[in-house]
Amino acid sequence: MSSQDRIWTAGLLVIGDEILSGRTHDKNIAQIASWLQVQGIRLTEARVVADDMDAIAMAVNALRTSYDYLFTTGGIGPTHDDITVDAVAQALGVPVVVHPEARAILEDYYTDKRGGLTEARLRMARVPEGASLIPNRMSGAPGIRWGNVFIMAGVPGITAQMLDGLTGTLEGGKVLLTETLGGWVAESEVADLLRATEKAHDGCQIGSYPFFREGRTGANFVIRSTSQEALDACAAALGAGFTALGLDYRRGGI
Amino acid sequence: MSSQDRIWTAGLLVIGDEILSGRTHDKNIAQIASWLQVQGIRLTEARVVADDMDAIAMAVNALRTSYDYLFTTGGIGPTHDDITVDAVAQALGVPVVVHPEARAILEDYYTDKRGGLTEARLRMARVPEGASLIPNRMSGAPGIRWGNVFIMAGVPGITAQMLDGLTGTLEGGKVLLTETLGGWVAESEVADLLRATEKAHDGCQIGSYPFFREGRTGANFVIRSTSQEALDACAAALGAGFTALGLDYRRGGI
Repeated sequence: MSSQDRIWTAGLLVIGDEILSGRTHDKNIAQIASWLQVQGIRLTEARVVADDMDAIAMAVNALRTSYDYLFTTGGIGPTHDDITVDAVAQALGVPVVVHPEARAILEDYYTDKRGGLTEARLRMARVPEGASLIPNRMSGAPGIRWGNVFIMAGVPGITAQMLDGLTGTLEGGKVLLTETLGGWVAESEVADLLRATEKAHDGCQIGSYPFFREGRTGANFVIRSTSQEALDACAAALGAGFTALGLDYRRGGI
Repeated sequence: MSSQDRIWTAGLLVIGDEILSGRTHDKNIAQIASWLQVQGIRLTEARVVADDMDAIAMAVNALRTSYDYLFTTGGIGPTHDDITVDAVAQALGVPVVVHPEARAILEDYYTDKRGGLTEARLRMARVPEGASLIPNRMSGAPGIRWGNVFIMAGVPGITAQMLDGLTGTLEGGKVLLTETLGGWVAESEVADLLRATEKAHDGCQIGSYPFFREGRTGANFVIRSTSQEALDACAAALGAGFTALGLDYRRGGI
């Protein structure tokens, strides 16, 4: 594999009891996955763990050593259940320190707010020793980078700001391109066509995603490739296959 | 710990490229988490992996041996990218066989449908040897149980049907009860109160979930306990603490 074709990978660790209790619907997996795709990086695995030091530390070490990048979300606020920084530091084997720049950012942010920079708020300036900061224009408290580990907020709107600050700064590979064909058809009716089409088009993968809407059966077929040429050829072949079976389809999906 | 106090745990493995590409927002983590909570079982970890045999098999073995139950979602349809049954069988070290009852269900379901029970559709009757079936009234194809592993659909509506069929059949422990207090307050303003209140109430955990809505800062504080008495006492103390700080709050959250 040439270095141009190297596939860059990322793991994601979502931290928080609220996700595992079903109380909060996670939005960061989809948000970070979409952002990574544009950076030419593939989200290869995501994990969700509770607010538990050992569970977080174990997952951090498993994922940061398996993939090029590791992103975490959640657990970096000012309250007692925000233990992500401590757990990541434990995983990395470094102490937790107050980052002077983070402290200055928080001092500035809380100047006019009730109570000022309290002990609780100062918790948000704590980082694993050796870390740098990821700017966050929304709420003051920055994200944290340590080597290939990126520690982000749990609130999706804040994570979006941090991702924005990172856009274009990470090394990635070719962007995975997609083309979607959708039809009001049971996927089982075109299973043979899908398999044969994928087999005939090197470097393309076809995913089949069925749904039930308004009492009808349909499916979207998503072709993925890093080559626009291969993608176009595969989409054309799949479309021709649908037509030969007498099936309507729509490019872009339904 | 008495057997009455035993905590029953579950892992969840979400399988599918469409989640890791950001194309599809996962709904099964929250759905299964909420359902498990009512069964007295705690979702302790969730993982998302791609449609990749080895990745699935490795995660299946990690999770089924770590927790009392393992649920998987996705990859049990009729198309070439549906490889969950094969990957689980590989993890379990058993062959894949056609389950006669599943075959009969599918024969019946597809009798009146175009093409009948094709080879592709028959794929949905394949199970790891030794498995039993989980009924699915919605689309014919059943879920699969093998030991402590529950193989469910990816489409959330079908998964819901399968969960419904399983309700009350799994052994669990005490149900985790919750009480939520919400206020238009920065969580950093009450961080000390939260920490002290949790510390003073054995068997209770307090989670703090900040949000930004309509330009205002607020937070919900979720108290969790398996004891109603402890929960009530903790909620009363937290409420009194807010009042003492001159803060309004709402039971049930905002």
